[in-house]
Amino acid sequence: MKVVPLHDTVSNTCTYIIYSEIDQVAVIIDPTDTQLERDLLEIEHLQLALKFIIETHVHADHVTSAYRLAELTGAKIMVPFESSHSNNITVVGDGDLIPLGEVDAIKVLSTPGHTKCSASFLFGDCLFTGDTLLIDGCGRTDLQGGDAGDLYDSVHGKLFTLDAQTIVWPGHDYAGRTASSIGWERAHNRRLSGRKRQEFISLMAGLNLPMPRLYETAVMSNLNLGRVQ
Amino acid sequence: MKVVPLHDTVSNTCTYIIYSEIDQVAVIIDPTDTQLERDLLEIEHLQLALKFIIETHVHADHVTSAYRLAELTGAKIMVPFESSHSNNITVVGDGDLIPLGEVDAIKVLSTPGHTKCSASFLFGDCLFTGDTLLIDGCGRTDLQGGDAGDLYDSVHGKLFTLDAQTIVWPGHDYAGRTASSIGWERAHNRRLSGRKRQEFISLMAGLNLPMPRLYETAVMSNLNLGRVQ
Repeated sequence: MKVVPLHDTVSNTCTYIIYSEIDQVAVIIDPTDTQLERDLLEIEHLQLALKFIIETHVHADHVTSAYRLAELTGAKIMVPFESSHSNNITVVGDGDLIPLGEVDAIKVLSTPGHTKCSASFLFGDCLFTGDTLLIDGCGRTDLQGGDAGDLYDSVHGKLFTLDAQTIVWPGHDYAGRTASSIGWERAHNRRLSGRKRQEFISLMAGLNLPMPRLYETAVMSNLNLGRVQ
Repeated sequence: MKVVPLHDTVSNTCTYIIYSEIDQVAVIIDPTDTQLERDLLEIEHLQLALKFIIETHVHADHVTSAYRLAELTGAKIMVPFESSHSNNITVVGDGDLIPLGEVDAIKVLSTPGHTKCSASFLFGDCLFTGDTLLIDGCGRTDLQGGDAGDLYDSVHGKLFTLDAQTIVWPGHDYAGRTASSIGWERAHNRRLSGRKRQEFISLMAGLNLPMPRLYETAVMSNLNLGRVQ
C-alpha cells in the first residue's frame, strides 16, 4: 500500500490519497474544494482508479470536494455521519471494513469526541486520525456534539492501544509537520499523554478557542458533502 | 518501506524520509538547512534511527543540512559527487546499493544532465529523481556541468525504462503537486515525452532561465555539505 499526503496551505488540511499498488485502486481521505484540480491531477499522474472518498467527520473549517469528486470519477462516498441526502453515500460504523482492491481493506474505527461522529481509518500500519488525534495535540471538542471525555476514551481506549509503530497521519497540522507514530504520541502528546480523564476534560474546557472562520457555511455544506444545490 | 514526503515552502524543495518498517532505520534525501528542526522532529515522532543522508546532487537553490544532521544523529552522508572534504562522506556511483536495515537496499542510478553528477535513487517501486525528472518537467541543464543531451539519455535510457507504476518523487515541485509515475511521465511529460534528442537539446538551450538567487553561496556551501567552516 502507498500513502501520498497532500496539504492545503489555506486551511492546513491534510488530504491523503492511499492506494493498493497491486491493482492501483485508490481512496482519498478528506479532500477539500479548493484543491479539486490538484487531487484529480495527482490521481491521473499516479495512474489510479479512485474507488472511495472518505470523510473522517463533518469539517468546520473547509468545504469538502467529496460530492464533486464522486460525480467526476464515479467513486463512492463513505462517511461516519448521516448526511443531508443519501444518494451514492454509505454511512460506515465501528469495525466496518472498506475493501480496497483484491486483498486490502481499510478498517473504520469510531472515535467520537472532536465531533459526535468522528472516525479514524486504519489501513495496514497507517492510521488516518482526522481531528481526533493530531501530532502532539488533538482537535477541539466544543462544537458539533464534541465531548472531551469521549475524545479521551477514543484515544486512550482505541488509538493508543494500537502498535507503537503505527503511523499517525493527522487531519491537520499547523506547524509544517507531516506524520507521527502511536508510540510517540502515547508517550509525549502534550494534551493526552499521562493525563487523567478529568484533567483532560478540564484542560479542553479552558481552551476558549475562537469560532472557525467558515463555521456555519462549512458545516452546512459538508453535511451535504459539498454538493451545490 | 515507507515514504514521508516533506516540503520546504521557501525553495519548494522536496525532502524525503524513507524507512524500512521492519527495523525502523531511515534515510533522508535532500534535507535543507531551513528545515533542520522539522526534520529532526519528524524522525523523533516516527521513532526512527537515521542511518544515511543522501544528496541527489549539488543544489543551487538552497543549502543542505547534511553535515549538521550527520553531526547530530551520527548518520553517514552518501553523495554522487566529490565534496570539498571527505570525513564521514561516501561517494556513490551507478549501480551501488545502499543497505537499509536487514533486508532493504536503495539502488543508485547515475543520471547526469541537470548537473554533471546528479543521481536518482530507487527504493522498491519508489524513485527519487532529484532535479533530473520533475513532475511534467525536468531540471535546467545550463549550470554546474549540466548537459541537455546527458539529461535526455539519463531519462530515456534509464528512468523511462523502469516499470510504469514506479512512483516518481521529485526534488522540487512549484505547483503543489506531490508525486507522479514513470508511466505518466513517459506518456505525457511536456519536455521529455515523444521528443527527439536534438529537439530536447534545442528546447533546453532556448529557456533563458534567470540565475538561482542563492547560486554561488548555495553551490559553495553544498560542495561542503553545508558544513560551516
